[in-house]
Amino acid sequence: MHFAVVFNIISILMLVISGFMLFPLGIAYFYGETSYAAAFLQTIIIVAAVGIVVYLITKKLKSKQFSAKDGFLMVTISWIIASAAGALPFYLSGAIPSYTEAYFETMSGFTTTGASILTEIQSLPKSILFWRSLTHWLGGMGFVVLTVAIIPLLGVGGVKMVSAESPGPTMDKISPKITYMAKMLWIIYIGLTVLETILLMFGGMDFFDSLTHTFGTLATGGFSPKNASVGYYNSAYIDIVVTVFMVLAGLNFGLYYRMLIGNFTELKKNTELKAYLLIFAVASVLAAIPLMGKVYSGFGESLRYSSFQVASILTTTGYATANFDIWPAFSKYILFALMFIGGCSGSTGGGIKVIRIVTLLKQAVTEMKQQANPRGVFSTRINGVPIKKDFVFTVVGFVFLYVMFLLITTAVVATAPGGYDLETSFSTALVTVGNIGPGFSLVGPTMNYAFFPAYVKWFLSLAMMAGRLEIYTVLILFTPYFWRRK
Amino acid sequence: MHFAVVFNIISILMLVISGFMLFPLGIAYFYGETSYAAAFLQTIIIVAAVGIVVYLITKKLKSKQFSAKDGFLMVTISWIIASAAGALPFYLSGAIPSYTEAYFETMSGFTTTGASILTEIQSLPKSILFWRSLTHWLGGMGFVVLTVAIIPLLGVGGVKMVSAESPGPTMDKISPKITYMAKMLWIIYIGLTVLETILLMFGGMDFFDSLTHTFGTLATGGFSPKNASVGYYNSAYIDIVVTVFMVLAGLNFGLYYRMLIGNFTELKKNTELKAYLLIFAVASVLAAIPLMGKVYSGFGESLRYSSFQVASILTTTGYATANFDIWPAFSKYILFALMFIGGCSGSTGGGIKVIRIVTLLKQAVTEMKQQANPRGVFSTRINGVPIKKDFVFTVVGFVFLYVMFLLITTAVVATAPGGYDLETSFSTALVTVGNIGPGFSLVGPTMNYAFFPAYVKWFLSLAMMAGRLEIYTVLILFTPYFWRRK
Repeated sequence: MHFAVVFNIISILMLVISGFMLFPLGIAYFYGETSYAAAFLQTIIIVAAVGIVVYLITKKLKSKQFSAKDGFLMVTISWIIASAAGALPFYLSGAIPSYTEAYFETMSGFTTTGASILTEIQSLPKSILFWRSLTHWLGGMGFVVLTVAIIPLLGVGGVKMVSAESPGPTMDKISPKITYMAKMLWIIYIGLTVLETILLMFGGMDFFDSLTHTFGTLATGGFSPKNASVGYYNSAYIDIVVTVFMVLAGLNFGLYYRMLIGNFTELKKNTELKAYLLIFAVASVLAAIPLMGKVYSGFGESLRYSSFQVASILTTTGYATANFDIWPAFSKYILFALMFIGGCSGSTGGGIKVIRIVTLLKQAVTEMKQQANPRGVFSTRINGVPIKKDFVFTVVGFVFLYVMFLLITTAVVATAPGGYDLETSFSTALVTVGNIGPGFSLVGPTMNYAFFPAYVKWFLSLAMMAGRLEIYTVLILFTPYFWRRK
Repeated sequence: MHFAVVFNIISILMLVISGFMLFPLGIAYFYGETSYAAAFLQTIIIVAAVGIVVYLITKKLKSKQFSAKDGFLMVTISWIIASAAGALPFYLSGAIPSYTEAYFETMSGFTTTGASILTEIQSLPKSILFWRSLTHWLGGMGFVVLTVAIIPLLGVGGVKMVSAESPGPTMDKISPKITYMAKMLWIIYIGLTVLETILLMFGGMDFFDSLTHTFGTLATGGFSPKNASVGYYNSAYIDIVVTVFMVLAGLNFGLYYRMLIGNFTELKKNTELKAYLLIFAVASVLAAIPLMGKVYSGFGESLRYSSFQVASILTTTGYATANFDIWPAFSKYILFALMFIGGCSGSTGGGIKVIRIVTLLKQAVTEMKQQANPRGVFSTRINGVPIKKDFVFTVVGFVFLYVMFLLITTAVVATAPGGYDLETSFSTALVTVGNIGPGFSLVGPTMNYAFFPAYVKWFLSLAMMAGRLEIYTVLILFTPYFWRRK
């Protein structure tokens, strides 16, 4: 372990985060929210000061080496500290009086979960709402990718860090030009942000709401500055724009890069892309059918609401235009099943990821063919190429750990005094570990997470982080093998 | 495909089943249940007559060949036809006026699920209750194993058939002396049956109740001739006897054979056995804690009820001594988590099976060690021996198909007009595909399956069969690869 390097990078990250807090600080001054400006200013000073001290201490000590283990450790600590720092403005300003709740809300923001402990959102000051939405946008692309993009200091070690933070199994090697790639990803991300903000403003949303909703969309986060989420606007145009951008945010951002450099052939044979779009289309139609005539009048209106919710759950965003908890059983079930899937690898979405589900499905079919024809030779193909067995093993290991972690999270939630129904406990695990946000029953789209006892809130904060960092990165720190020398 | 052989064996099975109906026929005469005796007699004549005709037709046509495909087809058709025949006494006697419900009840019996459509059980005639419990006992060990044990005509093909029907992945080759092994298994099964019956009679249960409850226990079935299941007797002694025998029934029967021939070394290093007993012990204690002082007075009493229910769900039996649907959230959650596990391979229990869960867990740990120490060499060990990668693949394929099938079953249940809560839909899938019986909410231990519409009942009948035959055997018939020549 090379702790000096680890904390050296973390100190830079702290400076980056305090830098980004200048935005809500400016907004606080602009809207005359003086006491909130003070909270942001205090936080910036504290975080930046600690960052500078740690940087100076670790600068001289740090070695040139950086191992895979250092990557796991650095990324996990980064997320814990970033949330601790990001929670300060909420806490210091009194917007969220409990630090436990402020931490939960911030971790929920950074991990792009979108689960909220707030009961009344609209009445909060603009600066607080802006910071709340900005945590989505920053966490969506990942702190490490962000740091790498800004400061090209990491060299080869950066690959290990980015792979510890990036969602989905890495099928192709990340370009060694890591800084270049990180910059490209951020440029694409910013480009999409500008585009959605403009489109939402065309729909009559003001600039502040457009920008904050865009943060929530592109990061697949789900925080809205409105109590009724996107449903507040009750506009078909806005619903469609958000639906389209949620689907775009759930795509592998590497594909946008390929499109930018004119490489469309890989796009056409991309198994995950095809499966993702197919799931979205089929689930939207299936969920719409029982809504017709029962909740909404025609198929068109039903599809508008079902496709929004399907996109929101599949991409793990968590926006709502309807209280889907009271939808007919079959439509609700479709959303439940989608909670097990998640976005594409390399997207800002959480969950198990489409590529893993597709790999397991294809592997299961291969096994079945093999059993039906014991003498035949079959292989599982992804993107038109037979996959290596080791890739399947990595996927299996992940999915199993994911499911185990879901069951453990459910168990912890169920220990709360008084207890909740199974639907609440299990869907809470699904939507926090999967970084989705709203679930069913007591954590349904019209509810919030305020009622959980403090220890459950802390555990769920950890669960959201473990989900965002794909379990391994966090869980590995708890194995003796990690800390063993050589 | 060699249809003549397939139907030749099925015709023998029909004769075997009609033969076993002589027992309830005798009981009907003994208790003077004349109209029920008539129903059994009619059924015996019909089933035996059809069996003889099919036997005579197929005897001359059948070839000597028997492929793996023939095994899958024969086993699936056997189970469909056995349930069709077994449902006749219920239907013809009017005990269950709807054939759909009679079929459901019979399939539930043969698959040792124990899900019932009956609202009033105790008032049914003894002969009907006996046949209902006997379906468990016959299905528990498997029809094919039974047929092979009785008529040693199958030769080498028998191995393929038994492996298509037997639960759990085959780690060691089934003895080529298949008839000998089948006989040994049945002798052990009968021995345990005699033992439990006697022990229950010591507890004050009459012979009829002791025998029928033993059938339900050793087959991990769950049908009880009492409305309140085993809870009817309210006896700590009976609870403990049933708990112990449920745990014994969830063990790999091959281990009993090894014990009989004095081979205890394999027992000591059996990974599945250790994991199974550990799960039972830990889950019983965990589930007991929240019950203390809240539902039951002390830890002893809480443990009595929790260990019974844990054994009942883990082994997929489904007996109840308490309405666990209203237990505190955490205790209820433990049972929910157990519904994903099931008994040991080679037991009469259903579910995913302990060995598969252990394999995935160990594989996930291996993967994690590998990621923490990329240069290390790690292997996954079962029974002290490193496992082959192909074994992991088979397990993965199975578990994935199982989960997919769970989600499909939930979807079908959720399509019912009016719909049900997610807890009902999902737990219905869990407890039918897992051959458990009682679930939560509308299918809780004090409820029954009568309220489902007919098409759901038929689908659940299929789901119970697919679960019992471990998905592949049934699903493979629906693949084009199965029917392709060469």
